[in-house]
Amino acid sequence: MTNKKEIIASIIIIGNEVLSGRTKDLNTSAISMWLNSIGISVQEVRVIPDIEKIIIATVNELRKKFDYVFTTGGIGPTHDDITAISISKAFNLKYDFHKEAFSILENYYEPGKFNEGRQKMAKMPTTANLILNPSSGAPGFYVENVFCLPGVPSILKSMLGGLNNVLIGGDPILSKTINLRTYESEIAESLTNVQNNNQDVEIGSYPFFRQGKLGVSIVLRSVDKNKIDNCNLQILEFVKAKNIKLVEID
Amino acid sequence: MTNKKEIIASIIIIGNEVLSGRTKDLNTSAISMWLNSIGISVQEVRVIPDIEKIIIATVNELRKKFDYVFTTGGIGPTHDDITAISISKAFNLKYDFHKEAFSILENYYEPGKFNEGRQKMAKMPTTANLILNPSSGAPGFYVENVFCLPGVPSILKSMLGGLNNVLIGGDPILSKTINLRTYESEIAESLTNVQNNNQDVEIGSYPFFRQGKLGVSIVLRSVDKNKIDNCNLQILEFVKAKNIKLVEID
Repeated sequence: MTNKKEIIASIIIIGNEVLSGRTKDLNTSAISMWLNSIGISVQEVRVIPDIEKIIIATVNELRKKFDYVFTTGGIGPTHDDITAISISKAFNLKYDFHKEAFSILENYYEPGKFNEGRQKMAKMPTTANLILNPSSGAPGFYVENVFCLPGVPSILKSMLGGLNNVLIGGDPILSKTINLRTYESEIAESLTNVQNNNQDVEIGSYPFFRQGKLGVSIVLRSVDKNKIDNCNLQILEFVKAKNIKLVEID
Repeated sequence: MTNKKEIIASIIIIGNEVLSGRTKDLNTSAISMWLNSIGISVQEVRVIPDIEKIIIATVNELRKKFDYVFTTGGIGPTHDDITAISISKAFNLKYDFHKEAFSILENYYEPGKFNEGRQKMAKMPTTANLILNPSSGAPGFYVENVFCLPGVPSILKSMLGGLNNVLIGGDPILSKTINLRTYESEIAESLTNVQNNNQDVEIGSYPFFRQGKLGVSIVLRSVDKNKIDNCNLQILEFVKAKNIKLVEID
């Protein structure tokens, strides 16, 4: 899409609760939007169960294919939190108390409250780098290009900013959305023409239903603002010619 | 988890809009909960971009590993809807107008309104089986064990029931949730003991933050109601001994 090397990432959501349908994944959206803003594009997401050999195999497959891999979930104190030990095994690193993590957690809790369960959260590859957690103490960590974050969306979000200076991104990926009161089939042919004339802009078309009304959101994505603007003009041209109404949605 | 063969499925979410973070995936949750109710367990979800060769490779990998594969998205009328042609290529089948689908759509639209864009929605593997769409006409389809559904959650949901008699499931997967006003670290050890004594029940522990209050949801899953009940009693025992409050959340 650009002359610069595209920096690509994948996300591994570790959690039976997403596979069972109990929990809707909100972390993909948070991580992807943040990565877009620093010029990294998410190309694959996998949701996998809390099973050690599957975590190890998935991490080892994806860390070779992508510049960055982010995992979410499984770094808490309970028996089903097995991300840290799985990552240790994936990288063949010693799994034990991480000195800095231990000391952060020891200071975080009141005297006498740093029990065995909480101490488990300081166990990880002993040579990992920490990802500080401004919300609830327990740090995430990274090894090479694999970044391990918690599963609770509010805590995860609070930790992303701390990685801005660690990741090397490209140009921010910009986007523009045009919302139309129409059907996809009414604009399909014109939109294909615009896409053919603008290969450097990714054009997505998404039907929506809001407040009982149908419409289509057209989303333009590129690292080049001029190319997005050009593409936008070409779309507004056929929208006007077809007498289609532009609408505002959130 | 059971003596019967476990029936396992995977879901492929086809859509740049989920990878970019613009759209949160709601379809995994809808498909998983419905599959659980007919005794099929989702073991992997992948979110992939609208790129033909990636769709083909992913479908061909997962259809061999799982009893059933469900795809969502990419069966509309626009240029970025390439699921049907990709599935045709994955199975080496002819991609052209599907007679029954064409006739359904021709009848669905008013005379003169069945334009080229809409006709594209009748193009798929010509020998595919259709998945009827009670919401908006355009059918989904399936080839062997791969089921292709639309991306719009409300439409997708309306189509699932029509597959109940097509899929062969196992015993329904049951679940019970216990919500506690506590921290995970307070119960981690006791919960590990209960899990060790109840290997046939999957026990998940999930911290929650609701209305400014912290808590933990413990989720028990099994095909055997007695085993869930047993496990539940053992958890309630340590909950009582530790003087932890049970709470109601939605």
